[in-house]
Amino acid sequence: MFELERRHCTQPTGPAFGRPDDKLRDEQSRLASLLTDCFAVPVIGRRFAPTHWLAMTESAEMLTKTQHLFDDATRVTAGDSRWQGRTSDDYWAFVGPFGGITAATILRALIDHPQRSGDPLSVTVNCCAPIAQGAFDLDVRLIKANRSTQHWRVELSQGGAEVATLATAVFAERRPSWSHQRAEFPKSPPFAQIQPYPKVAAPWVKQYDFRFVEGHPDFSGAVKDAPANAFSKLWIGDRVPRKIDMLSLMSMSDAFFGRVFHARRELVPFGTVSLTTYFHVDAEDLAAEDIDRVLAVADAKIFHKSYGDQAGELWSPQGRLLATTHQTAYFKA
Amino acid sequence: MFELERRHCTQPTGPAFGRPDDKLRDEQSRLASLLTDCFAVPVIGRRFAPTHWLAMTESAEMLTKTQHLFDDATRVTAGDSRWQGRTSDDYWAFVGPFGGITAATILRALIDHPQRSGDPLSVTVNCCAPIAQGAFDLDVRLIKANRSTQHWRVELSQGGAEVATLATAVFAERRPSWSHQRAEFPKSPPFAQIQPYPKVAAPWVKQYDFRFVEGHPDFSGAVKDAPANAFSKLWIGDRVPRKIDMLSLMSMSDAFFGRVFHARRELVPFGTVSLTTYFHVDAEDLAAEDIDRVLAVADAKIFHKSYGDQAGELWSPQGRLLATTHQTAYFKA
Repeated sequence: MFELERRHCTQPTGPAFGRPDDKLRDEQSRLASLLTDCFAVPVIGRRFAPTHWLAMTESAEMLTKTQHLFDDATRVTAGDSRWQGRTSDDYWAFVGPFGGITAATILRALIDHPQRSGDPLSVTVNCCAPIAQGAFDLDVRLIKANRSTQHWRVELSQGGAEVATLATAVFAERRPSWSHQRAEFPKSPPFAQIQPYPKVAAPWVKQYDFRFVEGHPDFSGAVKDAPANAFSKLWIGDRVPRKIDMLSLMSMSDAFFGRVFHARRELVPFGTVSLTTYFHVDAEDLAAEDIDRVLAVADAKIFHKSYGDQAGELWSPQGRLLATTHQTAYFKA
Repeated sequence: MFELERRHCTQPTGPAFGRPDDKLRDEQSRLASLLTDCFAVPVIGRRFAPTHWLAMTESAEMLTKTQHLFDDATRVTAGDSRWQGRTSDDYWAFVGPFGGITAATILRALIDHPQRSGDPLSVTVNCCAPIAQGAFDLDVRLIKANRSTQHWRVELSQGGAEVATLATAVFAERRPSWSHQRAEFPKSPPFAQIQPYPKVAAPWVKQYDFRFVEGHPDFSGAVKDAPANAFSKLWIGDRVPRKIDMLSLMSMSDAFFGRVFHARRELVPFGTVSLTTYFHVDAEDLAAEDIDRVLAVADAKIFHKSYGDQAGELWSPQGRLLATTHQTAYFKA
C-alpha cells in the first residue's frame, strides 16, 4: 500500500495531448475573469468547444504513458510535511485542472503518507483560487490521531503564494459492525448496452467513459423558459479501463457535469466551491468489488443567488453504495 | 451585523441548569471510553437517561439569562486570530457539548470577524476529539479572499492541547441570478397541530422544541431483526422562541437524532465525525422569512463498518429551502 514515487514523468505537450493552445488560452482568460473560484469546468459542447478539441485521435497506446494517465496525473513526491505534485495536461479543464484530479492527488498524498492509518472516510475540498499549470506544493498535516481515526489538513499552493485549495480528510480503521444499506440501487441497463458520450471537449472529459442512462446532456440552450430536470444517471469508467480504487472514486465523485448545465440546457460559467465525499466502503471492500466502472446518479435541489448544490451517489455494478458526494458550486446565469 | 462581545456571562451551574452531576459524570466516562470522536450525542431516552434529567422544571424566565441561551452558549470573545469561547452547560450533550452549538460558535466567530464579508455558503466541521467543559480557543484564519468569496479555517483547542475541532467555511457575497428551487417542500401539518417531543434527556435537547411529523423516535429496542425506517420529518424551533438566523440554522443542521438510533430503534454509542452544511439563502433572504422554526427532514443511505451517513434539509414554513446538511457518524452496534 505504501509507496513513494520520487520522479515526475515528463509531460508531453501540444494539442495532441490537449494542452490549451493560445487561442484557447485567450478564451480561458476571458472565462477566468468571469469565475471567482477554481474547479472551473465549463467543459463540454458547443460554446466553449472549438472543434479540434473534439478530435479523439489518440490511440490507447498514446494515452498510456507509464501505467495509467490517472496515476501519472495524481503522482506526488513525498516530503516531510511538504509534498509536491504537478497539474496534468491530460486532466485539464478550462481555467485549471479538473477538480476531481486535484482532489485525488491530495488523497494520494494522504494515502501514501507514512503516518497514515486506516482508509478515507470523508474528504472535503474547498477551492480557494485557480490552480495554474505546473508544479504545486501540498502542505500535509496530521492534525489529530485517535485510536481509530485520523484528521488531516492539506493546503495546496504554488510558488509560495496563497492557498489555492484547502482540504480536510478523515481516515478511519473501519471495524466490523451491524450493516444496513437503505438506499436503493438505481436500475439501469448494463454499461455495455449504452453508447459512450461522444461530445468530448476538455481533456479531462476525454479520460472518462461516460454512458448516460438518464439525463443525457443537452446543452443546446433550446428551451430555456422552463427549467429542465437536473437529474442524471450514468455509468462512469476510466476511458482506458483502470480498477476502481479510493483515488479514482474520489476523482469520479467530481466528474458530474454541472447541474446548472442540465437545468438550463446550456453551458454557463461554473466552478465548484466546496466538495465533500463520504466513502461507504474501506479499501478492502472496494478491492473485493473488483470493478472498473461505477453507476452514478446526481441531482440538485436548488439554484439561487449564483450558487447551486449537487448530491451524487457512486454505486458498484453489483449494487453496493460506494460513496456519496455533495458540493456547492458557483454559476453565472 | 458586526459586533464584538467582550464579556462572558457567569454561567449558573447545578442540576437545575442541567450540569452533569457526579453520577452522570461516571456514566459519561464509561461512554467516553466507547467513543472515538467528539459530537457524542447518545442523548435521549431509556438507556442513557436517568429520570432526573427528564425533569423540565425550569421556567422560561430561568432559561433566559441575558437575551437567549443560544446566544450565551455561542458567545465568543474577539482576538486577533485567536478567539475564545466557552462550552455551555445548557447545550451539553453526554460526553461533550452538542455539536451544533460548537459549529454555531465557530460560525459566530467568523460572522463577527472584522475581515468577514458576505454570508456563510458552506461550513464543514470535523470532530477530532472530545471537548471538555470550560474555555476553548479558536484559531481563526482567513486563508484566501477573492472578489466575492472568502475561505476560512478554524481550529478549536483547549489549554494549548491538540486540535479538538477542525472547521472550514466559505463565505460569499451572493449576487442576484437565475433562481430555481427543484426540491419539493415536504408536506406537513402545521407546527401548532403537533405535540412537542416530550422525552427530553440531555440538556441540549431541552433547548429545542422538536415536533415529529414522521419517524417518531422509538428507541425501545423492541423489534431489532428488521431495520426500521431511518427517515424523520419534524419541526425544529428553539424551546424559547428565537428568530432563525444563520447561527441557529447551523446548529439545527446538527440537531437530528442519530439515524442509527432510528434504524436500530435503540440508542447506541454514536458520534458525528464530519458535518457539512450548505446555506441556500443569504442573511437577507433568511431575515425576510422571519421565522422561529424550520421544517426538517433527515434520512440515511447506509450503515457499514461502524459508520453511517445522514442527509438533511431545513425548510422555512413558507416552503423555502434554507439549508442542506450531510454528515458521517461513528456508531457501535
